[in-house]
Amino acid sequence: MITSIAANHAKGKSAQDKIFGANAAAVAAAAKYGADKVTNATIGAILDEDEKLVCLPTIEKVYRGLATNELIAYAPISGLPDYLEKVITAAFGTSRPEGYIAAVATAGGTGVIHHTIWNYMDAGETALTSDWYWGPYKVLCQDMGRKLDTYKMLDENNKYNLPDLKAKVNEILGKQKSLLLMINTPAHNPTGYSLSEEDLQGVIDIIKEATAGTDKTVTLLLDVAYIDYAGEKEEVRKIFKKLSNLPANILSIVAYSMSKGFTLYGQRTGAMIGVSSSKEIIEEFAAINQYTSRATWSNINRPAMKTLANIYSDPELLAATEKERDDYYQMIKARADLFTKEAEECGLPMLPYVAGFFLSIPAKNPDAICDKLHEDNIFAVPLAAGVRIAVCAVPLKKIAGMAAKVQAAMQAVEK
Amino acid sequence: MITSIAANHAKGKSAQDKIFGANAAAVAAAAKYGADKVTNATIGAILDEDEKLVCLPTIEKVYRGLATNELIAYAPISGLPDYLEKVITAAFGTSRPEGYIAAVATAGGTGVIHHTIWNYMDAGETALTSDWYWGPYKVLCQDMGRKLDTYKMLDENNKYNLPDLKAKVNEILGKQKSLLLMINTPAHNPTGYSLSEEDLQGVIDIIKEATAGTDKTVTLLLDVAYIDYAGEKEEVRKIFKKLSNLPANILSIVAYSMSKGFTLYGQRTGAMIGVSSSKEIIEEFAAINQYTSRATWSNINRPAMKTLANIYSDPELLAATEKERDDYYQMIKARADLFTKEAEECGLPMLPYVAGFFLSIPAKNPDAICDKLHEDNIFAVPLAAGVRIAVCAVPLKKIAGMAAKVQAAMQAVEK
Repeated sequence: MITSIAANHAKGKSAQDKIFGANAAAVAAAAKYGADKVTNATIGAILDEDEKLVCLPTIEKVYRGLATNELIAYAPISGLPDYLEKVITAAFGTSRPEGYIAAVATAGGTGVIHHTIWNYMDAGETALTSDWYWGPYKVLCQDMGRKLDTYKMLDENNKYNLPDLKAKVNEILGKQKSLLLMINTPAHNPTGYSLSEEDLQGVIDIIKEATAGTDKTVTLLLDVAYIDYAGEKEEVRKIFKKLSNLPANILSIVAYSMSKGFTLYGQRTGAMIGVSSSKEIIEEFAAINQYTSRATWSNINRPAMKTLANIYSDPELLAATEKERDDYYQMIKARADLFTKEAEECGLPMLPYVAGFFLSIPAKNPDAICDKLHEDNIFAVPLAAGVRIAVCAVPLKKIAGMAAKVQAAMQAVEK
Repeated sequence: MITSIAANHAKGKSAQDKIFGANAAAVAAAAKYGADKVTNATIGAILDEDEKLVCLPTIEKVYRGLATNELIAYAPISGLPDYLEKVITAAFGTSRPEGYIAAVATAGGTGVIHHTIWNYMDAGETALTSDWYWGPYKVLCQDMGRKLDTYKMLDENNKYNLPDLKAKVNEILGKQKSLLLMINTPAHNPTGYSLSEEDLQGVIDIIKEATAGTDKTVTLLLDVAYIDYAGEKEEVRKIFKKLSNLPANILSIVAYSMSKGFTLYGQRTGAMIGVSSSKEIIEEFAAINQYTSRATWSNINRPAMKTLANIYSDPELLAATEKERDDYYQMIKARADLFTKEAEECGLPMLPYVAGFFLSIPAKNPDAICDKLHEDNIFAVPLAAGVRIAVCAVPLKKIAGMAAKVQAAMQAVEK
């Protein structure tokens, strides 16, 4: 009796999404006890102080104001030309790196990672990211028959751990010809950490040294999904200058997403932006990624692309959008500041948070702690090495007292 | 000097899209000579008699009326639950096949083909489709390291060629354990052919016979992208009854797209619907394709899914939508009827057209004929074995006289 018809590599695949599961538990509790009694810290989207999903008003106005044609027509495979131009500006601001640059539209940030893994890794090769990482990185590698290894993101002083990165880069490049290194910064999911300019320079020095005088190559993917809530706009973008004039055997790819910066999560639009000192490598980048787009999703959501293009073509719309983003950045920051202050007061350990939607508590029994927190009607996401708290989604009044409860749950579980 | 950084399998990929190229030439001619002088028969979308892109009014009303939440929030990875329920109804109508059924949301019809090739073929295996086929089928296979072979769709009497299909099925299953057979019907792109119920029964008999008593398997993909403009709604859906109670080693997948039926081309939403007599195989279908969605695009356009769910939950909205679709079906049919009549009158050969956006003229020198037609300011798409005319996009007044001009161009080129 045949019970499977999947290809050999596809048999047995399945994923329980812990985030959706934790959210479902929170929703059920809110229905039972009342929303005011429940703290749902699982959601990766901005909720305002009334726990309402935020859509930046200017974005909504521009999107809803699009002509029918722009709402429904196909876009070119690689993206609308004005989008591809403006998304580079949106990503880099005034810190546009020197070199050849091309952009290809994608299905959100996930789409960038998909194309990058597919087109810049051979089957069976190993990619590298930090030990605190967004879980889907591994799912993407596994589904495409690639592996994922990790380096320790932070040393014992909670500083960015360049020595461990260097050891891992050299170890992997000792075994394979090319390496994909994925770094989620600024405002890292799940910790809220941001690499400083010096941290990124250290990364670049490591991969330059590892490839110098060899035919080895590195693809450095910077996943900047949270950049628009990471701090002062131009300040947080200074890291991009570090991508200027790198050797031809280092290709930089910036994963830009409209999900958070435009609060258009469900519209599935982003862009992969390639930067190289080599014209040929950027031409190859544009050609092979367009080809994979044709072979994956054909083309990308036109109205979302048009919304970005229109806003970045109109200084007034852009100023309004940036004001709105900044207000919500400040709202999230106030929540994270309060949690951090209370965590310090009660001695709850925290990973170093700079900015972003999430902060993380390192812990030995994350699942048990999250279960214990359910008794307080607090819902968070258990990770492999800690608990993720979505400060983007919890109003300030519910943040108050939360750190102490996490601390109590941790002590109850670990005693 | 390094000039490529792509993975080995990705080096050298590039695709010139002939359809976009032909369309660009038509747009340039319209700018030069005036739109009224130019016939653009390249576009795969419905243009009305004023050559304006059509959006079904009820669809636009429902989409634009969605609450902000529905416009911007993430959807679950496999799709909104109400969408997954209603899209099965939308696809099958009253001809829902017996068996286990599950749906997974995808990026249009292309997304269905992506997941099916990825999850139901091993690397290096060969898929099968008819010799007249939508070009991207091959691009998808190639990008994922699979091959595409073809059978002759029509015999010398322009009847569906079951004997050639049978020979190819047996040839491929002689070499590999499983076969993906892709059939675009009804209203086939590029010819407008539709398999009759007897044709499809013949297909099923062939794959049943080829797998009976063996552990070989067949995945039968029916690409029904054009079903909502293929004829009377329930009549064209009767083919789905043929998918009932097939042996467990045949999995049927229906590729449903909202691009044409909802005129939401650029919103990139569709669904893969699996049908099997085996519970385990449908559970595997839901699990492995959700996994690949997570690993490809994460989740699918929420407002487009919600639009379908809302319309198929409201009999009045559905009746209005079906009336609008039928009006445009009649508009396209009138154009195809006129072309067919004039083709017969002037002796221009045509592939058997039943319904749909396109009709095709078999020819030995398609590129030369299309170039020659540019002298008449007529723009069509050259295929490997003929010329594709998009009757969906050309108003009736420009159809008049077109067949004779194609005939003249063919004679000029072939003399």
